[in-house]
Formats: sequence, structure tokens, C-alpha cells
Amino acid sequence: MLLDQIKQPNDIKKISPRDYPALAAEIREFLVNKISVTGGHLGSNLGAVELTMALHLVLDLPKDKIVWDVGHQSYTHKLLTGRREGFEHLRKYGGMSGFPKRKESDCDSFDTGHSSTSISAGLGLVKARDLRGEDFTVVSVIGDGSLTGGMAYEALNNAARLETNFIIILNDNNMSISENVGGVSKYLNNIRTSNAYLDVKDGIYYAIRNTKYGEPVVAGIRKAKNSLKQLVIPGMFFEDMGITYLGPVDGHDTGALVRVIREAKRRKNAVLIHVITKKGKGYLPAEKHPARFHGAEPFDVQTGVPLKKKMKANYTDIFSTVMMKLGQRNDKIVAITAAMPDGTGLKRFSHAYPDRFFDVGIAEQHAVTFAAGLAAGGLKPVVAIYSSFLQRAYDQILHDVCIQNLPVIFAIDRAGLVGSDGETHQGIFDLSYLSSIPNMHICAPKNKWELSDMLKFAVNFNAPIAIRYPRGEAYDGLAQFRAPVEYGKAEMIYEEEGIALLAVGSMVKTAERVRESLKECGLSCTLVNARFVKPIDEEMVERLSVSHRLIVTMEENVESGGFGERVRTFADEKELPAEILSITIPDEYVEHGNVELLKKEIGIDEETVTKRVLEEWNRV
Amino acid sequence: MLLDQIKQPNDIKKISPRDYPALAAEIREFLVNKISVTGGHLGSNLGAVELTMALHLVLDLPKDKIVWDVGHQSYTHKLLTGRREGFEHLRKYGGMSGFPKRKESDCDSFDTGHSSTSISAGLGLVKARDLRGEDFTVVSVIGDGSLTGGMAYEALNNAARLETNFIIILNDNNMSISENVGGVSKYLNNIRTSNAYLDVKDGIYYAIRNTKYGEPVVAGIRKAKNSLKQLVIPGMFFEDMGITYLGPVDGHDTGALVRVIREAKRRKNAVLIHVITKKGKGYLPAEKHPARFHGAEPFDVQTGVPLKKKMKANYTDIFSTVMMKLGQRNDKIVAITAAMPDGTGLKRFSHAYPDRFFDVGIAEQHAVTFAAGLAAGGLKPVVAIYSSFLQRAYDQILHDVCIQNLPVIFAIDRAGLVGSDGETHQGIFDLSYLSSIPNMHICAPKNKWELSDMLKFAVNFNAPIAIRYPRGEAYDGLAQFRAPVEYGKAEMIYEEEGIALLAVGSMVKTAERVRESLKECGLSCTLVNARFVKPIDEEMVERLSVSHRLIVTMEENVESGGFGERVRTFADEKELPAEILSITIPDEYVEHGNVELLKKEIGIDEETVTKRVLEEWNRV
Repeated sequence: MLLDQIKQPNDIKKISPRDYPALAAEIREFLVNKISVTGGHLGSNLGAVELTMALHLVLDLPKDKIVWDVGHQSYTHKLLTGRREGFEHLRKYGGMSGFPKRKESDCDSFDTGHSSTSISAGLGLVKARDLRGEDFTVVSVIGDGSLTGGMAYEALNNAARLETNFIIILNDNNMSISENVGGVSKYLNNIRTSNAYLDVKDGIYYAIRNTKYGEPVVAGIRKAKNSLKQLVIPGMFFEDMGITYLGPVDGHDTGALVRVIREAKRRKNAVLIHVITKKGKGYLPAEKHPARFHGAEPFDVQTGVPLKKKMKANYTDIFSTVMMKLGQRNDKIVAITAAMPDGTGLKRFSHAYPDRFFDVGIAEQHAVTFAAGLAAGGLKPVVAIYSSFLQRAYDQILHDVCIQNLPVIFAIDRAGLVGSDGETHQGIFDLSYLSSIPNMHICAPKNKWELSDMLKFAVNFNAPIAIRYPRGEAYDGLAQFRAPVEYGKAEMIYEEEGIALLAVGSMVKTAERVRESLKECGLSCTLVNARFVKPIDEEMVERLSVSHRLIVTMEENVESGGFGERVRTFADEKELPAEILSITIPDEYVEHGNVELLKKEIGIDEETVTKRVLEEWNRV
Repeated sequence: MLLDQIKQPNDIKKISPRDYPALAAEIREFLVNKISVTGGHLGSNLGAVELTMALHLVLDLPKDKIVWDVGHQSYTHKLLTGRREGFEHLRKYGGMSGFPKRKESDCDSFDTGHSSTSISAGLGLVKARDLRGEDFTVVSVIGDGSLTGGMAYEALNNAARLETNFIIILNDNNMSISENVGGVSKYLNNIRTSNAYLDVKDGIYYAIRNTKYGEPVVAGIRKAKNSLKQLVIPGMFFEDMGITYLGPVDGHDTGALVRVIREAKRRKNAVLIHVITKKGKGYLPAEKHPARFHGAEPFDVQTGVPLKKKMKANYTDIFSTVMMKLGQRNDKIVAITAAMPDGTGLKRFSHAYPDRFFDVGIAEQHAVTFAAGLAAGGLKPVVAIYSSFLQRAYDQILHDVCIQNLPVIFAIDRAGLVGSDGETHQGIFDLSYLSSIPNMHICAPKNKWELSDMLKFAVNFNAPIAIRYPRGEAYDGLAQFRAPVEYGKAEMIYEEEGIALLAVGSMVKTAERVRESLKECGLSCTLVNARFVKPIDEEMVERLSVSHRLIVTMEENVESGGFGERVRTFADEKELPAEILSITIPDEYVEHGNVELLKKEIGIDEETVTKRVLEEWNRV
């Protein structure tokens, strides 16, 4: 095995160039085998094998710095920097992260997770290098999908002014997570389909350009084309900004990649290398189903079929189904996703109502203000964005939707702990950042039927409203409790005395179990489904305080600005007699790992909550 | 007066074309005279007079829709839509807003305030129009400065796919608020300096292009240029994305503008009209000092000199001075602004330390992640961004700075009420959105010396930290209280018993006066300067609760997630005996107007607070 020779950074340099294809094949086999067991991002990693090898062949790690945009394509980088063993516990609690982490290795120069940050971060490292008089190479690797995010463009605009070396690698697989969209995508596609791969060794026009005869030669190339519209001068888009463009290069030809990266290192300005890769390269199921193998659950290597059959619908499925129904009933309903038609469950809606479906690219800011425009134009937009990604649009929600009080519906999936993606993806801040915004309304369903009911409620609600629901299996308990959703009203589930559990969304299920445990201890216990986080049901809190000595609020959100703080503030202002115990996520980032384990770790699991309630009960 | 003939929308169409220059002159005179009295945005409005006239000549208001990016250039639009009287009370409490407001006129189709939103909103209106089978024109007017904001690019990327009419007007004055920066600016400048103004009437190359002979003609034009780099095909940048480019057009030639807008209306896709304007056009002081006349205080029309002499330093001045000192002492300190070198006070730093100063354009997202990169590279970045604009970078603070616990200093100016800019600019959410973020630290100075002390503290603090301070005159009272800033520690100012006022930043001054009023009522009263909002000084709260029956928290921030909620939650969890009264900004947007008036209106002024404290005191 060639891989056995690679135990630490730069070991790859000992491999003979004629063995590069064999090494790439070994890496692919390794990745497919490991990820088939642990789950993880597959397609993007298979696409970036040769690119990563080439970077490690040219660069000197950890002196040189690579910033991986999003970071889910960094597995080969981890493998080549001595973290082979880490793949045994990839994305497991206490194990190796699926993203670059500075605390994991000094070869990881910047943590990533969300899209489109790498050029900004890389530019910071470049400026710091120069100001400190240091000498190393900085490379930001960004996908064509991430290039649809505005901050990447903000950074390109700034990189254009550099008079020092900075390498940006555009890893272009014509995909974000699903199909890529928009003008830039079309533009890149034009270059791609021109079939004019660049190989530095053979000498191509970009090298000629700056010579005295460059212009007529390039002019000649241009004339050979059919029309102005088709006349694609590769990279003119970037050159126009002031960034040297090299490419396109075959992203699966290690030798060609090595040559072009060496060439790029010689430049005294920002250089963009346009690399054409194939997502899922070398593993047929992943090549065929890129969306499914973007983030994969454990699967059978032979067939590519997931090992665990999905038994129950998840919240995304429910959302998907309800959107189909709502779309049919009301032609004012339009749906918006930021590059996640599969992940959000809007795929079916997109097929049924293609005119009323908008995939805007990885562009949450635009998504939200675009929705505000749609609402101002008289439509009823549903913006489906994951909790942690919606953080990108905080200002747009506050400034474009809520000041004008526009009826935009936010369908916030992956709210609460998401598990193996870790810190960057946990959706544990939305209740806080949304609660601070005037005119916003927030609710969360206890089970799958309630998600449906809340969506229907939201469609008839004439103001901004957010519905947040967690990743994974939709709870199908408490089916008999389906009182109509009323504005700002909580739902009484079991009414007793003594202790009242007042739980938000996913925590209702936990509260139900806590109640069982408390009953086993001989304590009577009320269970209330909060339903609304903004506004809170003040009447219900008052009512509970009359007949209960202890009110326990429960939420999958940080404490600051969350549901518990709001209830407590209200109760304190009203001088309600009941004691309050708030179960929240502590003020810290939560790492990757199994959600149930994480809940235990941070103390919001059934057992810990029961214990805390008992302690508090005995004290009050 | 021609202006007298304009009483309602579309009245301008009665004016004879030969009178357009005279009308433009009248409008300019009107604006200069009015703004010289009320204050307001001058330069951008003087630059957009003919452009606005042309839009109103071609369009049918309110049926057609104009979305003004940022919106501070909409004065002529307000004038031409029957709001001439409004200028008497422009930006005054209860008077006309300085920005477009849907509630003010049905000719204002979308509210703006922050930069770079207009293309997203306009695209929403376009899609809503088409889906509802309506027929009207949508125009988004965006400045070249706003084009440095990423979400404008996200929107362009989406607009490129349109197969229906949408007009984007690029109002290019080679300025954001100060000098424009970056690759795109350079690109636009190339076009601008080519001196090849487009006039549709005369027939120009873009019209030729799609014809059979188009290519050789265009090729001929190109050949005439010197080199490939200089060979600017106007608008290729936009054409590459799929957006028709028309221009450049002289933005002070009403006739030419009318013709090109009519031409644009005929297209069945997104069209960008590149209009060259001059900021401050027609008023010499504003042409000469564009930054000063961006947002102007009342001034003398003859000289352009502000009427009110600035007597005392404001917080921006203090920040400016301290940054100069810090920059001299520590060469690791670098400063970042998002297009506000004047507004933030970083201008002096930029002259003294040009290599360590970065104006990134209107790109708050990039600014923050770039700072994270600088910090990861071993420097000490100070990011100076206004409170309401920093909302744009919530995710970058959370995801790029705080997960990695990078020592970035956020200098947050305009925190609290800002006055005449209104809803979109009030800095009343930062304590909430920052408090929700793990690893973040937040402090606020009571007076000018403390801002200096806190900045010095922050430079030696090895984690993310935000210092927030308000717009306007820096408080120079309480000078004798200058205990060293200690991590997480509040400052005891006057220690008595009974009532404790625990105030944040700007509210310390108010609290000082409230204390005087209370003393006049015979009540003894402790005054504490909170200093830190995250973490709160728990020891101090405990100490206060021992000797005081009532603790009053005071902050210029909304309640949800703010300082008061945090203190209350802590006190409640610890079961501290004191009652708590929280003085905060209510859960609603605060309109434009004089800050002192606004404070009274929302109940955080000295008088109202005193009254509320007395009521609470009598109750507890």
C-alpha cells in the first residue's frame, strides 16, 4: 500500500509521480470504505483527491496554509497529514471532526463549516503574513457552489487589490450540493464546455498574453469562435476584477495540477486556478447520485444503498408533504431554498410548481430579502433554511422583512442539535436571534402533525413567522393532542399540580419522558407544549404559577435571549409565586457526535433533566 | 417655478423637455436650501436629480416600482411624488423619513436603509408581478458602493436567469460614502474613463452586437485598444453573467437617460444601465467634500460650513485618537472598516498606518471573517462597524471569530438610538445578538476616558471582545471615576442603600441624573457602572441585592437577550432577595427623530425612568 508510506505531513513527496494514480485510487478506496461505515461527506471528498494530493506535493505543511471552504472536502487533507487513524471515529463524539479544526492539527489553518468564508480568511492570513514579514503560501480552496455566496465575492473584490501572492483554487464540479444555479454558474459552464483544458507544460494563451505578441494571438483565438455571446474569454470575469486567471485545469490530473499550482506560486498578486472536478469521482453510486452522497449515512459499498432503512418520516418529509398540499390549495404560496432543495424537502414542490420555486444558490441573505420582495408583491413566501445557515440572514430578517412587517414564513429545519456536523451546524441560536427582532413570531411543533398544523396556521398569518423543527425522525407520539393552533397560545397536555413542565418543540417529547420518571418517583406533573416562543403565552404561565410550585422551561437553545429567559422575566415582572428552572443549552459551542450523547453531555437529556427537576423540587 | 407644477406623481410629464435643465436646477436649489436647515443626505441626492427625473418621466407611478438601494438618494423621488411639504420636517420626529417608506407613500415600493438590498427586493417584486399576471416595470437603483456588498452580487447572479424585464440602474459616482475600493471599482473605473458615453439615439455598439455584422464591428473597436488588460468591453462582467449591459450613460443628461430607460424597458431579461453621476453635483462644497456632505448637519448655504460648531469631542473622535496611540505602541494592531473611514474615525489611523488599515467596501461579512483570518495569522484586528450594520455579520462573528475564540476587537459605534436615520439605523440589538454567542465578551464605556481604557484593555485581552458606544457627544462627566478596567467587573460609583441603579454605557449618564432626582425625593441611591454586559458581574449583583430592596438595570437595547434579562435570570436563579426593574427599549422599531425626544417617547429618559423607579420603590 502506498498509503502506508504516508504517516505525516509532506510524506506524500516521497511517492513517485508514476504512482500518483495508484495513490489516488487507494485514497478513494480508503474513503469509500471508511465513510461507508461512519457516514460523512463523500462526493466532495472523492472529487478533491488529486487536487489535495497536488497541494500537498507543492506546499510545505504546516508552514504553508490551506483554507478549505465549507471544509467537508478536507478528508484527503486529513489523511495526508497523519490523521488516518482518526477515520475510525470520524464525526463521532470525541473523535475526529468532519471539518478542519485548528485544535485538531497545526495543518488546519482555519476552521470552516459554513459556505463562502475561505477567501476572506485566506486574505487575512496573507495580510498577516506580509505584515509580520513571514514567507509562506496561502491557498483558499472554494467550490463553485460556495462562489454563489456573496461574501466570497466581497472577498474576491478585495483580493483583486493584492500585490502579493495569494492562490484561490476554484474547485468547479458544476454543483453546489444539488445542481448549481445562476449567472456565474452559466458563465463557468461556458468555460467548462469549451473543452480547452489548460496544461502549463504545453504552454497556453495565458502565458502568452503578457508578451508582446500576446494580443494578436488571443485575438486570433477569439475570432475562431462563432458569436460574441459564445466568445468566452476564460476567466475574463476574474481578470476584469484584477485577479489572474489560470485554467481551466483537469482536476483529476495530478501532474497538471502540480504544474499550475507551481506557476501560481510565482505570481505577485491574487491568482485564481480554475480546476474542473467531478463530484463523487471514482465511485459510481456517488457519481450518479451526488445529492445523496453529499452527506451520506452508512451504506453498502457494493450497491451504495444505505445500511439502515429509514423507518419513520423525518420533519423534512412532513414539511415536504405539507408544502405540496398548501401549494395546491393556494397559488400565492412560493418556496425559496438556498441551494438545498433536497435537504429542506422542497424538491417535490419544485417539480410540482416549478414557477413558484426558487433555488437562489448558497445565498441566504438574498433569499430572505428576495422573499421580502415577493411578499411586498402580494405573494406568500416560505423560506426554508437550516437554523445555523439562517444566521447569515439575521440583518435581512430584521431589516427587510420585519421592519415592513411582511408576511414571510421561515421554515427552519435542523433547529437544535444536529449531531455529527458539530459546532458550526448546531441550530441552537435561532430562538435567541429571532426573539430579539420586533414583529417576529416564533413557534415550534411538538410532533409531526403539529408541524403540519403550524404551517397551515402560518399561511393564514399576516406577519413574519418562523417555525423551527429539528433534524431527524419526526416525533409521532402525543397524537391525540391536536388542539387547533391559536396565536400565542400554548397547549395543555396533562394538567396536574406541583411541577409544570413547559417545553418547546423537540423538548416536549423529552418532557413527556421526564414526566413519566417523575411520576415513578411519586410526583404529579403537568405537561404543557409551549407552541409559541414569541410571543410567550403569558396567561398560561400565570395559570401554571397558581397551581405549581415549580415551572420548568425546556428548550434546545442557548439560555441568553431564549424561551426560558423570557418566561422568567415575565414571571419575575409579574411577581408570580412559582419557582422557575430553565433547561437550556449552556453558553458554549457543542461539538460533533451522536445527538443523544450530546444531550447527555450538556444536560438536556431525560435523565439529567429528571435529576435536576428533583433537586430543584426538593429545594423549593 | 417649474416645481410648483409638480404636485403629485407623473406631474413631471407635463414639463417640456427643454425645461429639464431648469427643473433640475430648481430641484437642486430646493434640496440644498431644505437640507441646509434640517440636515440630511445631500451629496447622493444632488447626484441623482436627473436620474430620478428620467425615471419619473418614463415610468408610471405608483403602478411601476422603484427600489432605491440604501434609500438616502430618494429625496427627488419624494419631491416628485407630492411630498414637497414633507421637507419642512425631514427626519424630524413625526415628520418625513429620509428613506423610502411604504407607509409614507404608495410610490415607495420597498423600505430600505442598509446597503445592497435593492436587487434582491426588486427581483422579488418582478417574480410576484409575473406570477400574478400583472404588468408593470420594476427598477432597482443601486450605487457602485452598494455593489461591493455581497448580497447585491447574490441577487445579480439570480437576476441573470430572468426571462422577463427587470431594470437595474447602476448609479456610479465612483464613491461609496468615501472613496470606493476593490476590483469591481477598478473595473467600473476603466469603463468610466474610456469616455465613451452611450446615447441610444445615436446608435451604439450594444445595439449592433446581436446583428449579423456585430462581431466584426465589435472586434474592430477592440483592436483599437492597446492591450488585453486595457481592452475593456464595457459591461462584459455583467454580460458574462447573462445580464444585458447598457452604458455608460451621462447621468446628468435627462434626455439620454430617458432614451436608455425606454430602451431597457423593451428587453425581456435583466438589464443593467450603467449611469455615470457626480456626487454633490451642482453644489460646489458638496462636490469638493463628498464625505462631509454624505450625511450633513445643518449648514450655511453660501459657504457650506456647518451652522453649529462642534464643541465637544464625540465617541468617534475618542476612538480615533486612542487608535492612533495604540497603533504606535503595538504594530500588531490593524484596523478594518466597511466603507466608513470617516464615520468610524479610522481616517487618521489610515494615514498614519496605511499598511495596517483596510477599507473592505460595504462588506461587513467579509470584514469580520477577514479579521478572523488576520487574528489567526497572529495580528490584533480592530473591526470598527456601526451597531446596525454589524447585524450583517452575525454569522461571521459566531462562526468565524467565536468558535475559534480569535482575539478580534469589535469597536461598535452608533450603539443605541441614532436619531434621524430611524428604524433601519438604530443600534438597539447588539447586546442581544452578541450575548447569544459563546466566547463573546461585551463591554460599554460610561464616558470618554472609559472608552480609551476599554480599548487598551481589549488589546491585551486574548479573546473576542466588543466595545459598544453611542453616536454623538462623548460624556465627559464622572471624570474622577476611573478605576482600572478589570475583566467582568462593574464599577461602583456611589454606594448607598435602598435603590441600586445598574447602568450600561450611555445609560450611566442618565442614571446619574435619575439618582439626583431620587435624592431630591429623599431617597438614597447607589450608582453602578456595569462596564461588562457579557459576562455580567455576578458578585456585584449579589452584593447589591444584600443592601438594596430594588435593583434597576438600565440599557439602550431591546429587552430580549439584553443586559436586564441576564441580570434578572441570574438573580432569580440565585434567589437573590432584591426586586429588579429593567429599563430597556421596548420590543418595537424606533422611528426617526431627535434622540432626546425618542428616549422620552419610549420611556428611557431621565424623567420617565425616575417616575418608574419611584412607582416600583413604592410598591416593593
